[in-house]
Parts: sequence; structure tokens; C-alpha cells
Amino acid sequence: MLTFAFIEFRLIRMIIHLSSTVGPGEATKIAENIKAFHIQHGEQQILITSSSVKEVPNDLRDKTMESWVFDNDMQLSSKKYINGTREVAIGGVRIGGNTKNTLLIGGPCSVESESQIRSAAEMLKGMGLTTLRGGCYKPRTSPYSFQGLGFEGLQLLVKMREEYGLSVITEVRDATHVQDVIEYSDVVQIGAKAMYDQGILRACAKIKKPVLLKRGFGTTLQEFVQAAEFILSGGNENVILCERGIRTFETKTRFTLDLCGVAYLQEYTNLPVILDPSHAIGFAYGVTPLAKACTAMGIDGLIIEAHENPKVAKSDASQQLTYDEFAQLYTETSKVAAAVGYKIV
Amino acid sequence: MLTFAFIEFRLIRMIIHLSSTVGPGEATKIAENIKAFHIQHGEQQILITSSSVKEVPNDLRDKTMESWVFDNDMQLSSKKYINGTREVAIGGVRIGGNTKNTLLIGGPCSVESESQIRSAAEMLKGMGLTTLRGGCYKPRTSPYSFQGLGFEGLQLLVKMREEYGLSVITEVRDATHVQDVIEYSDVVQIGAKAMYDQGILRACAKIKKPVLLKRGFGTTLQEFVQAAEFILSGGNENVILCERGIRTFETKTRFTLDLCGVAYLQEYTNLPVILDPSHAIGFAYGVTPLAKACTAMGIDGLIIEAHENPKVAKSDASQQLTYDEFAQLYTETSKVAAAVGYKIV
Amino acid sequence: MLTFAFIEFRLIRMIIHLSSTVGPGEATKIAENIKAFHIQHGEQQILITSSSVKEVPNDLRDKTMESWVFDNDMQLSSKKYINGTREVAIGGVRIGGNTKNTLLIGGPCSVESESQIRSAAEMLKGMGLTTLRGGCYKPRTSPYSFQGLGFEGLQLLVKMREEYGLSVITEVRDATHVQDVIEYSDVVQIGAKAMYDQGILRACAKIKKPVLLKRGFGTTLQEFVQAAEFILSGGNENVILCERGIRTFETKTRFTLDLCGVAYLQEYTNLPVILDPSHAIGFAYGVTPLAKACTAMGIDGLIIEAHENPKVAKSDASQQLTYDEFAQLYTETSKVAAAVGYKIV
Amino acid sequence: MLTFAFIEFRLIRMIIHLSSTVGPGEATKIAENIKAFHIQHGEQQILITSSSVKEVPNDLRDKTMESWVFDNDMQLSSKKYINGTREVAIGGVRIGGNTKNTLLIGGPCSVESESQIRSAAEMLKGMGLTTLRGGCYKPRTSPYSFQGLGFEGLQLLVKMREEYGLSVITEVRDATHVQDVIEYSDVVQIGAKAMYDQGILRACAKIKKPVLLKRGFGTTLQEFVQAAEFILSGGNENVILCERGIRTFETKTRFTLDLCGVAYLQEYTNLPVILDPSHAIGFAYGVTPLAKACTAMGIDGLIIEAHENPKVAKSDASQQLTYDEFAQLYTETSKVAAAVGYKIV
Repeated sequence: MLTFAFIEFRLIRMIIHLSSTVGPGEATKIAENIKAFHIQHGEQQILITSSSVKEVPNDLRDKTMESWVFDNDMQLSSKKYINGTREVAIGGVRIGGNTKNTLLIGGPCSVESESQIRSAAEMLKGMGLTTLRGGCYKPRTSPYSFQGLGFEGLQLLVKMREEYGLSVITEVRDATHVQDVIEYSDVVQIGAKAMYDQGILRACAKIKKPVLLKRGFGTTLQEFVQAAEFILSGGNENVILCERGIRTFETKTRFTLDLCGVAYLQEYTNLPVILDPSHAIGFAYGVTPLAKACTAMGIDGLIIEAHENPKVAKSDASQQLTYDEFAQLYTETSKVAAAVGYKIV
Repeated sequence: MLTFAFIEFRLIRMIIHLSSTVGPGEATKIAENIKAFHIQHGEQQILITSSSVKEVPNDLRDKTMESWVFDNDMQLSSKKYINGTREVAIGGVRIGGNTKNTLLIGGPCSVESESQIRSAAEMLKGMGLTTLRGGCYKPRTSPYSFQGLGFEGLQLLVKMREEYGLSVITEVRDATHVQDVIEYSDVVQIGAKAMYDQGILRACAKIKKPVLLKRGFGTTLQEFVQAAEFILSGGNENVILCERGIRTFETKTRFTLDLCGVAYLQEYTNLPVILDPSHAIGFAYGVTPLAKACTAMGIDGLIIEAHENPKVAKSDASQQLTYDEFAQLYTETSKVAAAVGYKIV
Repeated sequence: MLTFAFIEFRLIRMIIHLSSTVGPGEATKIAENIKAFHIQHGEQQILITSSSVKEVPNDLRDKTMESWVFDNDMQLSSKKYINGTREVAIGGVRIGGNTKNTLLIGGPCSVESESQIRSAAEMLKGMGLTTLRGGCYKPRTSPYSFQGLGFEGLQLLVKMREEYGLSVITEVRDATHVQDVIEYSDVVQIGAKAMYDQGILRACAKIKKPVLLKRGFGTTLQEFVQAAEFILSGGNENVILCERGIRTFETKTRFTLDLCGVAYLQEYTNLPVILDPSHAIGFAYGVTPLAKACTAMGIDGLIIEAHENPKVAKSDASQQLTYDEFAQLYTETSKVAAAVGYKIV
Repeated sequence: MLTFAFIEFRLIRMIIHLSSTVGPGEATKIAENIKAFHIQHGEQQILITSSSVKEVPNDLRDKTMESWVFDNDMQLSSKKYINGTREVAIGGVRIGGNTKNTLLIGGPCSVESESQIRSAAEMLKGMGLTTLRGGCYKPRTSPYSFQGLGFEGLQLLVKMREEYGLSVITEVRDATHVQDVIEYSDVVQIGAKAMYDQGILRACAKIKKPVLLKRGFGTTLQEFVQAAEFILSGGNENVILCERGIRTFETKTRFTLDLCGVAYLQEYTNLPVILDPSHAIGFAYGVTPLAKACTAMGIDGLIIEAHENPKVAKSDASQQLTYDEFAQLYTETSKVAAAVGYKIV
């Protein structure tokens, strides 16, 4: 092999876990001194360095419990920091950790009416599933298209939770309504187009509710993980990554589901990963085959669009499954999950 | 040629200019009746249809002054609607229309300190240029990087405007501070990562200040123009498009400046187009050659990053020009502009 | 839904199966008359029209057995023409059709020496597998890198076939050695960089041996299928498609495996599909997870790089599996295959 | 800045110019000893190392005239090796070097008939231009489309050269006819789809005729330059690079012309660069604006498709200019060229 050592400059950061004798006040002072970023997870005081340190400074050694050095921009989210997958609870169901659960989330692209969302809730309930999706604030590209029911839709989701005991998940479109979604939704979904929105990221960092962060369709894996760092570093450890297809030159399918990227995220990050094949391919015919492919990788969840009558759906008509197709997907992915030691829940 | 007629379904929309006898109240009622979108530009009542109409309904004919039919999702922004380029005023300078002006906007990536931004203001003033850029709310990918001076930076820009008589332009990162930027900046820049943010788009639609809308790096031309439609359809006609490079497989340069896309926008839209070669290539060596290429297309402006000492810049160090290089760019682009009948202002 | 009929011009072609009373000579004459393309599959005389006909011409009706009309550039390869997957034999193993076989092809990136390729042959033989891969003519990007053993490597593959009873598959790099590969390899692999090479495509169209056609990393699904049409229309029906990753903006992985594209190919074409996860991700850690994902889609084969000692491999060192990892992949994909009704062979 | 030294392994190669006392035979022996690549340019014996050497070996020092160390895969083509642009002669015209010439090559996409190609020749002659393009071996994606006149077209180009004194350029599609193009064409064009074809690259490396190497639409700049290295390292120094658009997610234009890439090639390579805006955008409306953009960068040439009647062209009908439009392009680019110190020839 024709290789030779070559010097390159890279960004170095450290995570330092301070000893349990150091309280929040002292930690803040230390952080200021060394220009580090200070966060608290549970009772643990944590520093993330932002200056050129590659080992714990001498005068900090006896206040340090443990430390890690990183040469790329993945820290709290990395497997180097936590060697495993973080466990996250969604309602009564747990994913990640050692649970070997693949959470199947279903429901329509948009909440359109009470009867429509109720039919989805009943379908899930009938199958023994637990988590209902439905868009309220739709990030449409045209100002003249259906923009979602907004707050009214959110209240319909709440009603379904109360009546059927389901967890609900809906998407934040922009920072103007992030507090409403945080208040009423069990999982806060940050959409692909809103993924860089620091107004949203910072609001989600202050809560403890699970956040489903979707990868932007033009977003690199590095940027994706860094957006998760925004939430983690603000104190919320319940972050779930969601791959939903990236934009490529191929136009026969709407996007290109990046399972190479999923393999990368599973290898290098400690965050649960949920996949969204519906938005990736954009056509119902491919959703079940892709869902099986995703499941075979041992993933933490699937989010699938299903509608009582896809042909009349007000958005994403082409990619939503009928309830029969959704039931078939459940059956088929369950077999694949079993083959890799997982269970669809 | 081996061709044959084939039926495909496409979205059709109309713009209808109502007669001057129809006031806002009646226009709103008509809009409700035919499920159209109603907007007012100046005194003109405008409907944009959102149902399957391909000609003016019979009972609306004598209240209609003029109408247009569109078979794609570009309406108010299209050359079919306005056959020319809209004219926009930035401070005392006008671009678009028949002005043949190419506005050269300069300044640092980020406002870092009063002395730093003052040096940029003085450089521009010394050259007879009029418009100063400087980022205050930085959309950084890592939470541990410099995030901009925020409101303090915005006040420094205001100070420069007052002292040097320059127009200032700065970027909105998310909806939480959009009102501050709207209040203090002469041009509201919507960044590439915030381009789909309807909290921002809707706020910018309600004002009359010029809005510089940057194309997202993963955004199609169609989506880009549709984001502009959000602003136009809300009543603000002062929209400027800004191409700043798209994300492709090529990694030797940071992004790929899409001049084919610029040719498309010039051919099919009625909006002024400004180019940002600094962010596109990401390296200072290519900024001047690319700025000349852009200028030769007869464009409405250039936005160029320049810093008193690029090596110590807190963001985008590699792509900012020195003031000498910026002066050289001004000289060289001026010659190219003259060759195509334009003038750098 | 806001839609309206809109006329668009598209290319129309027909496939016409002539009656059994029409021999090759008459078919050729008819083809000339109507400027059609004439091919023969078995005893069947087939015309592919290249003029604006959308139904069988009157004077051809009683010589026509069956006909199909197509409005896109997929004809002989389409499910509309053959509603199922073509069956192809590789040595004694059959894939496609109703076989429900997933052929696992293994071996090193490059044939490097007799002992190295022998160790791969013995590994496969020991597992009961049947098909050995190994590159001889390497399409390297740098002229100064290892270029493969060429004809000598090809003879080593032949030796392995003779000694171990395995089928062998190797890649054609360019038209200068296509005849050698056709003569000595059981399956002719057309590489991603050679996929448009009509010198190769036309040579492969004249034979009956199976051809594994790899998708170029910058190739659309449409172009990919059209390259297959070159081979099919020349008379060789034994074409296998191979997806091996496309080039996108993501750089953490070498390419992006396009499983949305695979879903498309399974839905719309009648050709068997084999997947190459090794080249797609470019790193050994992801090969087994991706192989499981592919298998869950019910595919016709996998082609996996494995080397006795990947660290010293002369090409693609980072992505080749050890023999232990390959055995593990075999075990794990076998379980997934069973879950979807397939069998790894 | 938060940076720290980090060790990474990179490929190192050297170019060594041997002293004039060392003849070809001795150079070959030295190359074998140190496993280097040996080439001869003029009388100069050159070694390119392929082992881990980062300085001239001790026993080779007094036989070494000059040496260069490279840490990426660009050697003979790099500005580090030759600090300037190589000069290449096409017929009586020279480009590159200090010539400040921008060669305007014109003609149809395909040679269709004698009268058609003659009309193009006359148009060029009438304008005082010197170089005629015309495709003979067309790399069509569909087997059922017009495939070009082949050798007959090549002879028509020869006829035009003889009658009008023009240089002619045509494209090699695959290795089966590379010798014909080498024999009859003044410039050998290697098409975007054939760019990796080593059968073609190696044949072009053995001649002295200028080779116009087009970048593949899925090809990185690094791979593009490495393909040029194949030709340079075989002994042919007359290599011209041609950027013709890369494939991106944008579909309103056929490809995306990569002028950031052109800035990179001008900064880092010593090869002349010619641009092809016709294939990049794929629509006639954008060809002239883009040609002006390219010209403003100070490039070595433009290759533009023009047809006596684009509407009936047998290939690429949408992007070919009429002769009037071509004349207008000549006028307008001449002004831009003058503004940057160049001349259209």
C-alpha cells in the first residue's frame, strides 16, 4: 500500500464528566474559565470543550470523573461516548437500548377531519398498535395548496389519544407554533424542511419529551447528527433520528432512501433510528418492500402513511397505503423483524 | 420524430385581475365562492384560482379585467404574468426593471465587532458602493461554534447605516427574531436553510421591504420560485431571488453554483436575481472568476463576503476576500458588466 | 384535487409479435417497410416500431399474433410485455421466474494470485455456494494504481471453475477484451463505468450467456433499463440488472444504495435484480446489515466482496469482508430470506 | 480557531525528472527497481513513483534533475508541476499557454447529411472561425433511436476539412472505432459516457493529436483529472479538459454546468479548459447567456451546437442554436472576451 503520514488540521473537542462533588454553579464557572459549553444531564455536570484542548487540563484533573476526545463533530450522540443505543419511551412503549423493538407508527399524511383520523385510530387500536401519526401544520411548497388544519388538527389528535389510549406524533413546521406541538403531542416531530431551525431545536432542547428529528433531503449525515447535538446539548436526551430519503438525480422515485446512511448512523451514533419509507419513494407500491428492507436492518421504528381512502387524500395521495395494505405491511415486517431478533410493536 | 399525443393530468391555476369597480370586500366574497385565493397588490384585486378552472367562469366575465392560465406552479412570479423583471429599490439604488444595474453587496460573513464591521463600511464607502452585508444570527451546524452577535450585531449594522449612509442586509435564521430583522434591516435576507420556513415567509409577506430569498442547497428551482410565491401572494412584491450554490456529489468545492438555473430564472420568472459566489465555491481563489461569470449573464446583483483579515474570521474563513481582493473584483466585474450593457453599482 | 387534462407529447413505441407463418426474411422486409427494428427471440419474429404508430397497421393485422403499446422507453424489459421476472440460469442454478432463489456470489475484488483466488473458491465450496467473483480487468481511476492481472487472472478463474465446479463471473472494463471475457467467464459482468459502452453492449447482445449489467453511479433508472434494452434487442434475453449504489452528496459512505430504485425495477421491469452492497457503502461494517435489507426485498442475488486478508488487498481494502464475516452474512441473510419466502443459494 | 494537529494517511507520489545523461533504457531499469512508472515526454525521462517515497532515494540523487512531491492524485496535470497552462495547437490555432485565445467550435450535434454539414462549414467559414464539430458515433441511450452515420459521417467531416480548410472534431463512442477517429479527426473527443474507457484512453495516450476529454456527468473533478493523467502518462501531452454539466437533483435544466469546478481546474491544473454549455442546459434559450458566463472566466474554448434547422434535427433538437443565434453568440461572447483580455477565435 502506497501511503504516508500526512499532517492535517482537524477540529478537536472533548466531553468531560465532572466529579459528583462539583455542582452546577461550580461547573458553570469552570466552563467559563476554559471557554467550554456546560450542560447537565440528570445530576451529571458535563463540559464540552470549544478550545484546542486534547487532554484534561492539569488543574481540572481531580474534578474530572471521565473524559472523551473527539476529532469530528459528533460528541454526545456518538457511540464513542455511549457504547450502545439510548433508550427512549414513547407512551408505554420503549425503543432503543436492549429492547429490540421496532415501533410501527401509522396514520394519514394530514389530519383532515375527525372521522378520518378516528378511522386511523381505530385501525391501529384493532391491530394492537400504539402510536398514531397525523400532520396538522403542513410544510407545503405552494401557498395555494391545502395547508393543514393547524391547531384544530392538533386537538383532534389529543381527542384520539384520550379516546383510544394511543400516543400521538405530529410535525412542527416553524417556530411560531412549536409550543403548541410541545404541549399537545407525545412526540415532537421536526420535519425535513425545518431541521436546521434553531428556534425549534432550542425549544425542543428544553423539554424532556421525545423528539423525532427528520433528516433534511439535502442534509449530510454530519449536519443531521449535529442538529441532534443541538437538542442533546440543551439537555434533552430523548432524541430519535429519522431517515426519510435524500434528494438525488433519480426522478422515477420521489427521493432516495439512504440505507447506507442508516448503517452509518447505527455504527457511529447512540441514537435510535426510525425510517420513513413512504416519503422516500413517494409511491404506495414500494412502501411495503422498503419497510421490509428497513426492518431487516434491526431498526427502532417505521413511520408509515395510511389513509382510509388514499385517492381522495388532501396531500401525498400517491404514497399513502390503504388500511388493508397497512395490515399486510404489519404482517410481513413482523416476520422479517423476527428473523433479525426484533419485534414490531 | 417519433411522437404521439398522450394525455397527462397537470395542475392548472389562473390569475384573474378583477375590474377596478370591484372592491376588496366583493373580491373576498367572489374568492370564497370559487374557492380562490384573494390578494391585493396596490389597488388591484387579484384572484388565484385553486379549483379546476381553465377559463374565467361565465358569471365573472364582466368583472374581469384580465386573466392568465398557468399549467405549472409559477404564477405571480412568472414572465407569462409580467413580461419583464420587477424593479426593486434598495435604499437609493434600483435594480431590475430597465435599470441594467448590478448591485455589488459586500461585507463580512459575520458581524464580529464594531471595529470590524466599521472597516467594511469604510471600504464600501470609499469605493462608492452602497450596500453592506453582515450576519448577526448565524445558522451554524454545530451548537458549539460561534453563533453570531444576534441583536447586538443588528444594532451595529444600524449604527453603520446611520454613520455611513449605507443600506444594510442581514439574514433571518428562524422565526423567533424575524420581527427584529424586519424592523432594523433594509433588506431582509432569508437564508438557504430557512427558505421553507413559513413563519418567516408569512412575516415577510406582510411588509413592503425588499426580501432577498436564498435558494436552499437542496431546493429545486420549482420549490424556490414557490417560496417566492408565498411572499408575493401575501402582498409583498419586492422579492429578489438569490442563487448561492446547490449541493452535488462534487466535494472539491463547497457547493455547485447553478448558472443553468439562473438562465432558467431569467427566462421564466419576473424576479430580480442576485448571485452569491462566495458561499457557492467556499474558497476565495474562485470568487472573482465566478463573480465575472455571473456578471456576464446580466444579473441584478452580487453578494460577496469580504473581511479585514479573513484568516481570523469567526466563520467562513476560507471564502472571504481581503479588501484588496474585493477592490480587484469590483474593477474586473465592472469591465464585464460594461461588455453586456450593465453597470456595477 | 386541482387537476386538469393537459396534452403532452410523448414517445410511443410498439412491440409486435408476428404470426408463426412469418419467417425471418419476411419479417426483415416488413420491418424495413414500416421503419421498425426487427429481432428474433427463439423462433419468434419481433418488431419494435420506431415511427408514430399507436396501433398495428391495417395491412399487418393478419400477420400479427400479439402487440403492445408503450409510452416510455422500456419495452422488452417491461412487466407490461412479460408479466413476471425472466428466469436466468447461472451454471446449475436458476434465478428469477418462480424460483424464489437469492444467489449469493462471493469472492475478492481483484484476482491477485492463484493461492488467493483458490482460498476464496474453497470457502465458497465449503459453504455449498456456487458462484465465484473476481476482477481481472480493473477500471481504476488512477493510471498509477494496480490495474488487475488481466488475461492471466481470467485463466485463474477458469482453473477454479475446473477444479471446484464453481461458476465464475468477472467484469469487462472496455471493448478491447470483451471477447476474452465472453469466452472464459460464465457470467459477463458489465461494470458501472462501462455501462454505456456500446462496443460491449452489442457484443453481449450476440451471445446467450448471462450478462450482469451494473448501473452506473450517475445513471438514471431509465438509462439503466435502456442499456438492458440494447442487449435484449440484439437477441440475448439473459440480462440481469445490478444496483451497486449511486453518487449523491453524501460522503460518509462511498455511494448510496438505491433501494427505492430496486422497488421500481421490481415493479416495472421483468429482469432479475442482483444487489452489490459492498461497493455501495464502501466499508465492511455496513455490508451485512445492507445485505439483510436487500434480501428482505425478495431479490435475485447478492454480490459480496470477501478476501482472505482484506487489510492487504490490492484494491477496495476497506469494504471486503473476511471469510468469517462472509459466513456470518450467509447465516443472517438466510434467515431473512426465509422470512420472505426466498432461499439463499 | 479550535483546531489541532491530527495524523491522517494519504497517498504520496513523486514526479522525478531524470538527468539528461540518463537514456530511456536506464530509466526503465531504475523504474523497475523502485517500482515506479516510467514515461518519456520529448527527450525527458520521467518517473512517477508508486511506492511510499517522499523524497528522492539517496542512490538516485545524482541522476535526478528535478523532483516534485504530491499528496493527492493529480501529478502531470497539476499546476504544482507546470505553473501555467499547457499550450495546444488545433490546426493553425493555438490555445492555452499565453495565447489568451478562446476557441469557438461550432456545428451540429450529429452529422446527418452532406448538405447539412456543408451548411455548418460554410457558416463557420463565413464568420472566420476554424473548427467544425459533428457527431458520427452517437452514444444514444435507446437502441431504437438514430445512432449516427458512423464512418460515413467521419468521411463527410474529412471532406469539409478538405474543401473549407477547417479543423474537425468528433466523438469516440467506444473502443471499437477509436482508430478511425484517431486517423481522420483533427481533435479526438472522448465523450462524457466514454470517459472512463481505458481502451480509448490508452489509444489516445499513444498519439500526439489533441484529445478533448469530456467530464462524465457523474464524475468528480478528481476522477476527471485522473482520466487525463492516463493520457498524459502514456506520452500524449495535448490534453484539453471539457466541462459539459453534471447530473444533479435539478430537472428544469438537463444538467448543471459546474463553473465552480472550472475555477478549481483553472487554479490547480495545467490543462486548457473548454466549455460545452449546450449539453449542460439542454435548451437553446440558455446557451448564449451561459456562453457569456463561461467566456468571462477566461477559458480556452467553447463548443456550441448549431444546426441549419434545429426543429428537424435527429438528435438534441431542443438545444441546438440556429445559425443566426450562433452568430449572435459570437458577437456577444467576443465583447465579454475582450473585457477579460481574451479573444474569440
